[in-house]
Amino acid sequence: MASSSSLTLSQAILSRSSIIRHGSSSHKLHPFSTSPSISVPSFSGLKSAVSRRCPATATTRLLVRASAAVETLEKTTDTELVEKSVNTIRFLAIDAVEKANSGHPGLPMGCAPMGHVLYDEVMRYNPKNPYWFNRDRFVLSAGHGCMLQYALLHLAGYDAVKEEDLKSFRQWGSKTPGHPENFETPGVEVTTGPLGQGIANAVGLALAESHLAARYNKPDIEIVDHYTYVILGDGCQMEGISNEACSLAGHWGLGKLIAFYDDNHISIDGDTEIAFTENVESRLEALGWHVIWVKNGNTGYDEIRAAIKEAKAVKDKPTLIKANSYSVHGSALGAKEVDATRQNLGWPYEPFHVPEDVKNCLMSDFKFLMLFCGSHWSRHVAEGAAFESEWNTKFAEYEKKYPEEAAELKSIITGEFPAGWEKALPTYTPESPADATRNLSQQNLNSLAKVLPGLLGGSADLASSNMTLLKTFGDFQKPTPEHRNLRFGVREHSMAAICNGLALHSPGLIPYCATFFVFTDYMRAAMRISALSESGVIYVMTHDSIGLGEDGPTHQPVEHLASFRAMPNILMLRPADGNETAGAYRVAVLNRKRPSVLALSRQKLTQLPGTSIEGVEKGGYIVSDNKNNNNNKPDVILIGTGSELEIAAKAADELRKEGKGVRVVSLVCWEIFDEQSDEYKESVLPGSVTARVSIEAGSTFGWGKIVGGEGKSIGIDQFGASAPAGKIYKEFGITVEAVIAAAKEFF
Amino acid sequence: MASSSSLTLSQAILSRSSIIRHGSSSHKLHPFSTSPSISVPSFSGLKSAVSRRCPATATTRLLVRASAAVETLEKTTDTELVEKSVNTIRFLAIDAVEKANSGHPGLPMGCAPMGHVLYDEVMRYNPKNPYWFNRDRFVLSAGHGCMLQYALLHLAGYDAVKEEDLKSFRQWGSKTPGHPENFETPGVEVTTGPLGQGIANAVGLALAESHLAARYNKPDIEIVDHYTYVILGDGCQMEGISNEACSLAGHWGLGKLIAFYDDNHISIDGDTEIAFTENVESRLEALGWHVIWVKNGNTGYDEIRAAIKEAKAVKDKPTLIKANSYSVHGSALGAKEVDATRQNLGWPYEPFHVPEDVKNCLMSDFKFLMLFCGSHWSRHVAEGAAFESEWNTKFAEYEKKYPEEAAELKSIITGEFPAGWEKALPTYTPESPADATRNLSQQNLNSLAKVLPGLLGGSADLASSNMTLLKTFGDFQKPTPEHRNLRFGVREHSMAAICNGLALHSPGLIPYCATFFVFTDYMRAAMRISALSESGVIYVMTHDSIGLGEDGPTHQPVEHLASFRAMPNILMLRPADGNETAGAYRVAVLNRKRPSVLALSRQKLTQLPGTSIEGVEKGGYIVSDNKNNNNNKPDVILIGTGSELEIAAKAADELRKEGKGVRVVSLVCWEIFDEQSDEYKESVLPGSVTARVSIEAGSTFGWGKIVGGEGKSIGIDQFGASAPAGKIYKEFGITVEAVIAAAKEFF
Repeated sequence: MASSSSLTLSQAILSRSSIIRHGSSSHKLHPFSTSPSISVPSFSGLKSAVSRRCPATATTRLLVRASAAVETLEKTTDTELVEKSVNTIRFLAIDAVEKANSGHPGLPMGCAPMGHVLYDEVMRYNPKNPYWFNRDRFVLSAGHGCMLQYALLHLAGYDAVKEEDLKSFRQWGSKTPGHPENFETPGVEVTTGPLGQGIANAVGLALAESHLAARYNKPDIEIVDHYTYVILGDGCQMEGISNEACSLAGHWGLGKLIAFYDDNHISIDGDTEIAFTENVESRLEALGWHVIWVKNGNTGYDEIRAAIKEAKAVKDKPTLIKANSYSVHGSALGAKEVDATRQNLGWPYEPFHVPEDVKNCLMSDFKFLMLFCGSHWSRHVAEGAAFESEWNTKFAEYEKKYPEEAAELKSIITGEFPAGWEKALPTYTPESPADATRNLSQQNLNSLAKVLPGLLGGSADLASSNMTLLKTFGDFQKPTPEHRNLRFGVREHSMAAICNGLALHSPGLIPYCATFFVFTDYMRAAMRISALSESGVIYVMTHDSIGLGEDGPTHQPVEHLASFRAMPNILMLRPADGNETAGAYRVAVLNRKRPSVLALSRQKLTQLPGTSIEGVEKGGYIVSDNKNNNNNKPDVILIGTGSELEIAAKAADELRKEGKGVRVVSLVCWEIFDEQSDEYKESVLPGSVTARVSIEAGSTFGWGKIVGGEGKSIGIDQFGASAPAGKIYKEFGITVEAVIAAAKEFF
Repeated sequence: MASSSSLTLSQAILSRSSIIRHGSSSHKLHPFSTSPSISVPSFSGLKSAVSRRCPATATTRLLVRASAAVETLEKTTDTELVEKSVNTIRFLAIDAVEKANSGHPGLPMGCAPMGHVLYDEVMRYNPKNPYWFNRDRFVLSAGHGCMLQYALLHLAGYDAVKEEDLKSFRQWGSKTPGHPENFETPGVEVTTGPLGQGIANAVGLALAESHLAARYNKPDIEIVDHYTYVILGDGCQMEGISNEACSLAGHWGLGKLIAFYDDNHISIDGDTEIAFTENVESRLEALGWHVIWVKNGNTGYDEIRAAIKEAKAVKDKPTLIKANSYSVHGSALGAKEVDATRQNLGWPYEPFHVPEDVKNCLMSDFKFLMLFCGSHWSRHVAEGAAFESEWNTKFAEYEKKYPEEAAELKSIITGEFPAGWEKALPTYTPESPADATRNLSQQNLNSLAKVLPGLLGGSADLASSNMTLLKTFGDFQKPTPEHRNLRFGVREHSMAAICNGLALHSPGLIPYCATFFVFTDYMRAAMRISALSESGVIYVMTHDSIGLGEDGPTHQPVEHLASFRAMPNILMLRPADGNETAGAYRVAVLNRKRPSVLALSRQKLTQLPGTSIEGVEKGGYIVSDNKNNNNNKPDVILIGTGSELEIAAKAADELRKEGKGVRVVSLVCWEIFDEQSDEYKESVLPGSVTARVSIEAGSTFGWGKIVGGEGKSIGIDQFGASAPAGKIYKEFGITVEAVIAAAKEFF
């Protein structure tokens, strides 16, 4: 694939342009050009571009660029150089996929034009601080095309993606994994790959912007103001989650959400015609979106620019820009086809080569402002710094004028919570009235919302069952985006993915979302991404067992506790009463890089003696011991979680009456308990005590390790049933009597 | 709520009608009435109806009804009596919810009119044989309104729902659980409640009809010919799964799928306006549906009838009939409100009362045929028997003319497979070439498709990765519904739910579906319903571990094996090579009331000595022992599944070289192993041997019980990584060396 091998005409042309590039820094600025649309055929266009290159100082350019960024759509850029930049992106993708012999060059090849326009002309970001708060967000929902994003981040100057990173695409320990992963690659906002997640994340990012802008912008200072851009493909469009998310985006009128739909008619199994003949544009319009069709997504740069301009002008609706693009294969092309592609697109360079003029010489002229031109992609580093510094100045002014709001916003931006926030957590005594943990959860949410400005969330149409309404706030709705109660409708999957977007928007945003625990099955794919992408979403999952009663087995979780205990990097908490619910919220709030699932009861539970917030923070702890504990040798250990801790405690009372030494342990969060020191764990569950009985109204799967080979697990290893809760508990043997009987087998 | 307490006027009127009913059987037939539309105001209408009652013999009526069933839409029925029937349905629902003090009267109240028209006038079924093959199918996708269906089944004469069943609504052991459950209540086709599942199941039912009709109907005999009706609400419409399923239904042009959309603007959290403002009709049109709007869903019976007629006339598109209905509360109304409702609707009866005239006297006249009239709802028993007997006659003729097709269809209808089908399973020897189990799976699928006429399925746009194409069959598409390769597009959730519909359509339909194992997360809610509703779907889940390599952690399952092992009534199989893959298929095919998940490798695996189909049928078995096994005392037991069985076998080889007695056990399906006798289990994993090492490229969660307190589990309790597979295996320590090291700790 050496560039010297017999060149086609188009290769020869571009080869020439690569020679020309060396003169790029000495050409002159043609200021104040107002030519709205210079139509430049490819080769002559290159020459005219050269004649208009500018030596403007970095500072001048930066000031212009920073303040004019939203106007960049007005400009006409040098088409041939744009195409060269676009082909650079394409071949970086091709070369990386080829080197890895793995990956998907198709999307980068098709979407390089929109990617180029977004990252080079439209978006405001700071490559040297990928976490600058007010940056425009970009989400590649079609995550398999991640080389597009890596190429763009590379060109834009992000430190995470240097040339060697592109060369180690999909290799162990690289910053360029097989799909975009925010936790690996600064500059990647969210983790995509599983289709449909990205567009839903983007709805969350846009929701965050809309909400924070409404809460914190002032007539004189617009402190929150960014767009969220997405590229999604047919796969995302087919997934149910994207329809859910787009329905919400339309309902909420998220005007600053702009999604490119790469309509390339290619799916893994062939032409999309075999399974996908719906009218996507009409569907999106029905969901309340503004839809634009870019007929030439391959070279229609002005069409793309015009579409973005139009999208920005529509302020009360999200926009879908459908862009037809090349249909390209979905896996590594192979040397032969890469060679042919190089020839077809006239690309004479070595693999991973970025032509100097692409790095340094693209010229732009502004219609209403001024022409400037400078080092091309490399200018984004200085420009980005200017964006951020300009914003910092603005924030300083904001802080002076609106100290209270600034403090709140700062907490949201940094994730540093107001001192003493934990004091808001309610506390309970055994005399406090018995209550369902779902109600106790609502007390926590309402207390915390007052001290944590970033706490916001809602339910998938079960707010009155999940008990998630924040009583002192209104609903986030199109006319009232400043409010903090989110109404997700019956859309669990997108709810979770939207919360991922919220959590990853700003470290101090603490999204919570709610449904019945069994319906985590609807959103498990998004919850896994919470865990993987370190999104500290709080999942408020009520009706956590057969204890919900009459709704029956479709609504009764059985295997769900086990299924989340098996999932990495997620906390599965099942509090037993008020203190434990408060403890669970403390843990959940503090774990900003680890999502928490709170399994909460529908039924009333007694406030137990011995439970505590501190205990929950250990994951498992002794709730009660009736004998001198010096030798740490109870006759039996009864271990429970949630609603069954009360059963364990009652069984202990009975057994103690018979003179037994009985320990009751709450194993409220296995993951945290597992992280404690061996000493602590031994102090709670001494290895020498093999007489152990666990009780939990769920699958016994996994309990074997806790109770050991001789222990006994009381649980439910079958589906539930429709009947009043008390009856089901009795029929399934989740009773004090069963615990006593199991314990007595040890005596 | 006694009917004798002070009546309102409307109650008095209906009270009078209940007196009149006793004369119902002695009134005369008015034959050949062709009056197209007798508009009868409520009270006088009742009288005119009385004057036209008919004493026609059951036989006459049946013949007329059976052959005229598709014409019933032409008839005008006595509106007041229809309303009385509708109110009967409403109050059966109200009374049952009230008695249970739990449940949802809203949907039954709103949808009683469409329910009445469907079950009384439109649908063909046989109440005494709910499993009659050619019946029309009805799915209540809004399953929380199940009292609607129970009331209809009760009126229609299904044995499962007698008066005492209505009175034990939502009680332990009743046939009337809190949501419709096919495994509890014959007459209920599928299990609904989790929203959106039902409409997707219905797509599967309609797909089955379309496919079987195309395969087996002959120009002279239409042996497969039924409709699938659905009622769904706003909740279903919001769920992503319903959009996916409806997109496929539109793509496939399932013209005999007719869905009523109960647009009552009520959701649990309040008016749907708070979260659901999309244009559902436009969206469904964009998905390729025909949409009709019934403006008066409460009393517009003729509108409802006309809509169904129109829907049937549109043969190449599914139809959505949007019907506005009453907005009613979502939980038990309470005595006071029930009383008020009784007064408002003029219902003087005791709870659970079915007026005699509703049971016996509704009159119908046919526009183009003849007037008949007879015992009302009770007539469905004899009519249903006639439908079935007529069809049986037809089938006998079919069998005579087309014996081969009839034999196939019979196998599909009965679930009795052709003798010796298992012989089609491929077998392998250690000399057979190494291969990925996903490829071996395809060999099985293609072999089985030749001998099992009901095997059909496909992938969620990964057919070429999942290796699921049946090579001797074409694609099921709108113009070619006779084919057996289904193209689901990237729609995992609806894929699984559609397969549930296929499986529950006929006992001999064996649907399989495929995606990457990790994306079971997208369809877990539907998979759980496979398990609960006893749908023997085969889940072909490839790329089952970090062994998929470069796609990285978003695509690498870790906790998935554990998560399905914890789920009731589902078989989690992870075959290690060719013989085990064949064994897995044998198990999966034979388990028609239990879904199977096959976890299959992307990477090549060696054909191992000692593996067998018979072994898989035991769930776990000894693959190799190197020492005399009389005392059943190996020095160590190495336990593996799938791709790691080879690692265990290699480690065993090494350890045996050092003189150790090493047993290798394949634990390919924990659920089946668990069901074996204690003796068998002891013979494989003797209690006395505590030196056990498990190896599996997934979470160790759950292995504690298998390896015991002293055993060791090698696995992956964190997310995977993007790199070539071999590298990840090494970095995560899933190696022969690790097994040897762990085993040596016991020596």
